[in-house]
Amino acid sequence: VNPSPVPDAAERPSSELAADLAAIVGPDHVLTEPSVIAGYETDWTGRFQGTALLVVRPRSAEEVGAVLRACGARGGGVVPQGGNTGLVGGATPYGHVVLSTTRLDELGPVDEVVAEVEVGAGATLEAVQAHVAPNALTTGVDIAARGSATIGGMVATDAGGTRTVRHGTMRSQLVGIEAVLADGRLVRHDPRADADAGGVHLPSLLAGSEGTLGIVTRVRLRLVPRWRFRAVALVAFEDLASACAAIPRLRRSLPDLEAIEFVDQAGLALVSAHAGMAAPFRAAPAASVLVETAADRPVLDELVAALDGLPGLHDAVAADDGPDRTRLWSYRERVTEAIAAVGVPHKLDVGLPPATIPAFVAALGPAVVAAGPEARLVVFGHLAAGNLHVNVLGVDPASEQVDDVILQLVLAHGGSIGAEHGIGRAKARWLSRARSPGELAVQVAIKRALDPGGLLNPGVLDPGVAPAHDHRPGPDGR
Amino acid sequence: VNPSPVPDAAERPSSELAADLAAIVGPDHVLTEPSVIAGYETDWTGRFQGTALLVVRPRSAEEVGAVLRACGARGGGVVPQGGNTGLVGGATPYGHVVLSTTRLDELGPVDEVVAEVEVGAGATLEAVQAHVAPNALTTGVDIAARGSATIGGMVATDAGGTRTVRHGTMRSQLVGIEAVLADGRLVRHDPRADADAGGVHLPSLLAGSEGTLGIVTRVRLRLVPRWRFRAVALVAFEDLASACAAIPRLRRSLPDLEAIEFVDQAGLALVSAHAGMAAPFRAAPAASVLVETAADRPVLDELVAALDGLPGLHDAVAADDGPDRTRLWSYRERVTEAIAAVGVPHKLDVGLPPATIPAFVAALGPAVVAAGPEARLVVFGHLAAGNLHVNVLGVDPASEQVDDVILQLVLAHGGSIGAEHGIGRAKARWLSRARSPGELAVQVAIKRALDPGGLLNPGVLDPGVAPAHDHRPGPDGR
Repeated sequence: VNPSPVPDAAERPSSELAADLAAIVGPDHVLTEPSVIAGYETDWTGRFQGTALLVVRPRSAEEVGAVLRACGARGGGVVPQGGNTGLVGGATPYGHVVLSTTRLDELGPVDEVVAEVEVGAGATLEAVQAHVAPNALTTGVDIAARGSATIGGMVATDAGGTRTVRHGTMRSQLVGIEAVLADGRLVRHDPRADADAGGVHLPSLLAGSEGTLGIVTRVRLRLVPRWRFRAVALVAFEDLASACAAIPRLRRSLPDLEAIEFVDQAGLALVSAHAGMAAPFRAAPAASVLVETAADRPVLDELVAALDGLPGLHDAVAADDGPDRTRLWSYRERVTEAIAAVGVPHKLDVGLPPATIPAFVAALGPAVVAAGPEARLVVFGHLAAGNLHVNVLGVDPASEQVDDVILQLVLAHGGSIGAEHGIGRAKARWLSRARSPGELAVQVAIKRALDPGGLLNPGVLDPGVAPAHDHRPGPDGR
Repeated sequence: VNPSPVPDAAERPSSELAADLAAIVGPDHVLTEPSVIAGYETDWTGRFQGTALLVVRPRSAEEVGAVLRACGARGGGVVPQGGNTGLVGGATPYGHVVLSTTRLDELGPVDEVVAEVEVGAGATLEAVQAHVAPNALTTGVDIAARGSATIGGMVATDAGGTRTVRHGTMRSQLVGIEAVLADGRLVRHDPRADADAGGVHLPSLLAGSEGTLGIVTRVRLRLVPRWRFRAVALVAFEDLASACAAIPRLRRSLPDLEAIEFVDQAGLALVSAHAGMAAPFRAAPAASVLVETAADRPVLDELVAALDGLPGLHDAVAADDGPDRTRLWSYRERVTEAIAAVGVPHKLDVGLPPATIPAFVAALGPAVVAAGPEARLVVFGHLAAGNLHVNVLGVDPASEQVDDVILQLVLAHGGSIGAEHGIGRAKARWLSRARSPGELAVQVAIKRALDPGGLLNPGVLDPGVAPAHDHRPGPDGR
């Protein structure tokens, strides 16, 4: 069910629109051949599977503007798409035009004085990281999908990742932004000074807007040092409550803290078996927590000292930068593939206030047992941000019952239904329970003010919408 | 000249409105007596002097809503006012109702687990700092006007201060927010988890909106550690370019960096004479820079090591926490009073990209000489954020010529006309030159969507408005 009545692709006079768009971007960049556009029609999970009227690939903000004007003149929706690594159906077309941003991939010169770089929205995170690495800089946000995820998509979803404890989400990385509104108008916030208060802050407005307010075409990013030294510790806590209680202490004692990541007992067992690695601890702990620091001076001693005397700490293994660090990170980073090797999971990306994380995770057990005799729970995630990835294996992938039960638990524990992956289509129908009515009214008012015709990404972030997707779950990589 | 035709206070049937409002907030909290409301009619600089129809002081968000509905029904504008410490005429009434937020001063319990506190918008910064101090916490933003400035006003102006290099501006401190829109509707963003992406982020939208989109009634603030150890150094650089070049190096080598502040040669001489303190250096340096670090471990050695070998560094005096630290900070903190003791300055709060700061300051000299034979320039500010406070003494306070010349120079050097003090009425007419047309169009569209009648703070942040104020400059404390 889509919010605006978009006819099926087959019913549309798409050849006329295709001709108009070809005149703007060139015929090579309007894709209509079904086998070619198939990759744009399914999201990364495989769960959201739609149909594209066509795919258009503009090369400049001006072309984006002309494309939107042409599409707006004919009605129907436009779905912006970057690397298509999203997990909530936020870039999947349902009879819409797909506007692919991947050709907007320019990489500007690195400004070393302020540690900033201006890049096209279609540049991948990995390309930007490689581009700035010679300056001993990197991006403040890092995610596993860096090879495909585009900067524009990461802005639109306000992406998080492992480093948010130090640098915040994408919203905090934005110094300047350029975007095209639904009516084709170019809007820019030019970076001036860090100190520049007064009025609506365009980068903050567009971060997290999931392509519904404008199409991001270019951003100026704050960069962070690429540190010379790293130290990591895998820590066994006797329970999750002790792990959560350690967060504020670690934040305070480690000025160079870069990550606090969590893997539960089931996750640690799965990854050890899958990767053929010895279990890191003799007794499998209820909560394994990976703590990393990074600086331009050796930091291992500081890290070890900070762990000393933490209540509930059973055991810890620490390592400098090098192969040992890679091995310790594997226990966290390879959980996703270990889960995928076992089966197709239900996967929920949620946020919890630190105080309720232990109670929430404890409540998950009975909820998952109720989902069926073969149901198995694996929880991991970015503990410092309260960002948990809840995975349920052994439950019919087509059923939404366990998802609904888990999201209900999230709300009951004061949590957020969309943490770092956003709302998209998948969670739109939950919005009205997850946000206050006034807050949603403001969002709807701003959407109407900037996109009165509802051209951009119909159905996404729309509290009035039921999810529009086929139920064909597939592998999911976070 | 005001944007909406607001009759003079004398012509309004204010007694009827006063009676309606008294029924909402109680008769003691509707002020109409001229001698009582005089303090609400003039801003802190004395430069903006208006007239209030009346002053209403609600005690709850519900009362704020009822007040706005009553005012909206009668037309005319409502000017929200906190501690009235602003410097750009952003809270000065011109025949409007003043809605004073100072009774919304509740202080909620400190949440130690996440280091957050929920407070009323009318609480002063100092009251919040005192409230959380027993938990060894403090606010991420600190400003000199802490004794009067309210949290709500600081959110509305997206206040900065000395610590932004470490913690960012007020926008970065907001976890949750509650506000009342022009139509009286309450809107809330409830803090859930740190990870909570998807849709318009209400705290980011209202930060910097200067009371034009809604009246902030309550916020949930991120708190920061109240560190046990501090170290400060006053550093003499041979020129401003060397000082600016040192910023990225200091950021990188000092993980606990809390401030990089600047005072020019004239400022250092003024403050030494005014405070009766010996000059800190034998030869007066072109640029004196105060660098501070703070942590839960002694940091003086790290600070001294970080200064070692900085190009252009002539001399430095460093101190631990204690009386020596206070004395070194005096060279920066007492510049404002030293200036005020000499005369009434023209004062401009501007932001510059680090790369153009030296050229901008060099260009100020000739511009100030042209302003008159007695004109004297003093520049200081938050160097790490590129936030400079430009002061010109010895020029007719009623003239705006030197201000215009300086703001023109700011724009020519890629800077921002409103840094940490905002735009208000003072700089509204500069908006169309300082921001891109598309960006202003978005701001106007959002204003119309949320306040179609233009009830809230008319004339403020309005690009179509000429400044409406008397020219009666007075002392200014930042």
